[in-house]
Amino acid sequence: MALIRRPLSDAERLDWLRLIRTENVGPVTFFRLLEQCGSAARALQILPDMARRGGRTSPLRIPAKAEAEREVAANAKLGARLLAACEPDYPEALAAIDDAPPLISVLGNVHLLKKRAVALVGARNASLNGRRFTQQLARELAEAGLVVVSGMARGIDTAAHEGALSGGTVAVLAGGVDVVYPEENEPLYRRLKAEGAIVAECAVGTQPQARHFPRRNRLISGMSLGVVVIEAAHKSGSLITARFALEQGREVFAVPGSPMDPRCQGPNALIRQGATLVESASDVVDALAHLTRPPLAERAQGDLFAAPPPTAILAPPDESELTQARALVLESLSPTPVPVDELIRGCQLSPAIVHTVVLELELAGRVERRPGNQVNLI
Amino acid sequence: MALIRRPLSDAERLDWLRLIRTENVGPVTFFRLLEQCGSAARALQILPDMARRGGRTSPLRIPAKAEAEREVAANAKLGARLLAACEPDYPEALAAIDDAPPLISVLGNVHLLKKRAVALVGARNASLNGRRFTQQLARELAEAGLVVVSGMARGIDTAAHEGALSGGTVAVLAGGVDVVYPEENEPLYRRLKAEGAIVAECAVGTQPQARHFPRRNRLISGMSLGVVVIEAAHKSGSLITARFALEQGREVFAVPGSPMDPRCQGPNALIRQGATLVESASDVVDALAHLTRPPLAERAQGDLFAAPPPTAILAPPDESELTQARALVLESLSPTPVPVDELIRGCQLSPAIVHTVVLELELAGRVERRPGNQVNLI
Repeated sequence: MALIRRPLSDAERLDWLRLIRTENVGPVTFFRLLEQCGSAARALQILPDMARRGGRTSPLRIPAKAEAEREVAANAKLGARLLAACEPDYPEALAAIDDAPPLISVLGNVHLLKKRAVALVGARNASLNGRRFTQQLARELAEAGLVVVSGMARGIDTAAHEGALSGGTVAVLAGGVDVVYPEENEPLYRRLKAEGAIVAECAVGTQPQARHFPRRNRLISGMSLGVVVIEAAHKSGSLITARFALEQGREVFAVPGSPMDPRCQGPNALIRQGATLVESASDVVDALAHLTRPPLAERAQGDLFAAPPPTAILAPPDESELTQARALVLESLSPTPVPVDELIRGCQLSPAIVHTVVLELELAGRVERRPGNQVNLI
Repeated sequence: MALIRRPLSDAERLDWLRLIRTENVGPVTFFRLLEQCGSAARALQILPDMARRGGRTSPLRIPAKAEAEREVAANAKLGARLLAACEPDYPEALAAIDDAPPLISVLGNVHLLKKRAVALVGARNASLNGRRFTQQLARELAEAGLVVVSGMARGIDTAAHEGALSGGTVAVLAGGVDVVYPEENEPLYRRLKAEGAIVAECAVGTQPQARHFPRRNRLISGMSLGVVVIEAAHKSGSLITARFALEQGREVFAVPGSPMDPRCQGPNALIRQGATLVESASDVVDALAHLTRPPLAERAQGDLFAAPPPTAILAPPDESELTQARALVLESLSPTPVPVDELIRGCQLSPAIVHTVVLELELAGRVERRPGNQVNLI
């Protein structure tokens, strides 16, 4: 992402919201459009044409301005801030990931998002010992000045928030910022709102669905310098979070456990793979000590977000050129994801043209964008 | 050790026994004397002189021939073999360590000593889960063809032997081969004698004392290709065994556990330091697979034990030379251990002279030999 760090005007915020809520527009596509078009307003104007060029026949669903205004109002009514990725209060570590959410809703103490954070994640069906350990670890990490990020799920997540409540903790929800899930965590939710912070990428009122959870997990790791995994079965969501952490260049920590407990297989496997073994808060604090990323407030503004590159203001490529390129790109793609860079090399076309064609195909719903800047035919 | 692999005659066995049971003669000194004098018989002859030259005023206690005969008879009465380090039935891996016991008593199935072995060690106050895990691990390792070595202590050791009884297991005792400790393991001891094997370095009838246990632990690791540590507190005997394993070039394995259980601090610390994390028998079997040291029976005899080096048959250095050297060596030594090699460099004397002087001082009880061929003044 190459954005100038600055507050958005109300009008721009509406444009950003309409663009990210547009059908077939995910975070990567959002920032690609912003780069290509110079602004969200301009992107909204040319979106229908781009989708048509990509082969779309039915019109693209773009939220009306009134719809976006209702979402802004809903946030305001809850007392939630709607923060854009270029704004100073947006978490710096999160802004650095490839698919940072362009906008997040934040309830509670926004200032916590500026502090160095570490994520604690693990099993919902955690053992009593696992929960006790997590609570103590979270308390000690918070005392060491780290914000504890987790997902407000049952088990480990709940213990993590509870342990760190007085020191500083942030819950990242899979649904809307106002949707309490699981319901039993209503009291915790209220305390998080008062003493910590609650973050959500989905619109206010969104009920969390299965597909939301892995996407939410990338925010948990993305907001953090590292992720600590405590009790997690093979193929669990916590291991997905750990994988995101690796992809995002964050530290991975794991708490060892008995091989006789299936909930310890995840952390033990991570340790085998090189994760830092955690027995106490100091193991985490020490490992993160060299990552002295100061809170944003103490840094010179603008050194993270550079000016937009020249391509952002270039005119789109010539249409006849694009037609040829489109055929070539479509021919090169298959249902198996390939990196866009490989596509560029394979087609022997300019990056600008391939990016434009992929964008159009994506808006048309014919191409899907995958983690690691990969794409495949749908 | 540079020994020709061969069976001892009864007379030689008596000489070996008298020499290793001599005051101030440990295994390293034993083999140094053997090398220097060519035979145990010759060493016994010149020992009093050497000790005197080293500064000893009272006579050195050397067991009488009758005493050694009584020990041989006691072994025979128990049905125990008294195996010398140069003999074909002596465990090959044990013979390879610096301070291999010159003689061991073996009860039970001597053939087990020729098989590839792995040690399982851990806490006496082990958890129920730890014991269950150990028993299963031992069973699976035995099924995979590995002999399971342990120390017949309460807890993990007992579980290890029990799990591997039908497949093959060896207990190494701290006291005499006939002294059951702890007493409650009398039934296990009987089964080990019938189905496994029991090994001891101390004389028949020796009651185990605190100082015997660390020495015994070097045999547990020394007989094995690797050591698996399951539940062990900081500074426990199991960690001493793991340290021996490292010094002996053996693999170290550790079973992870909850940071909330002090019994898991040892294994977790080992994993941090690079020990292989163990969740199942295959973790051990796979790691040892590349160490395909075939059972000795399948190997050409004599390739482990080379012929004695020329120094073994050299005359001892000149006396006036030794007198000067003795003063220099004594001046260079202090209560802080130094490697003998460093001593040789520091004194700028020939290795043969320094070795002789150190040997004499040791026999005189003025110098102590430490692991890693280090010595210090007493």
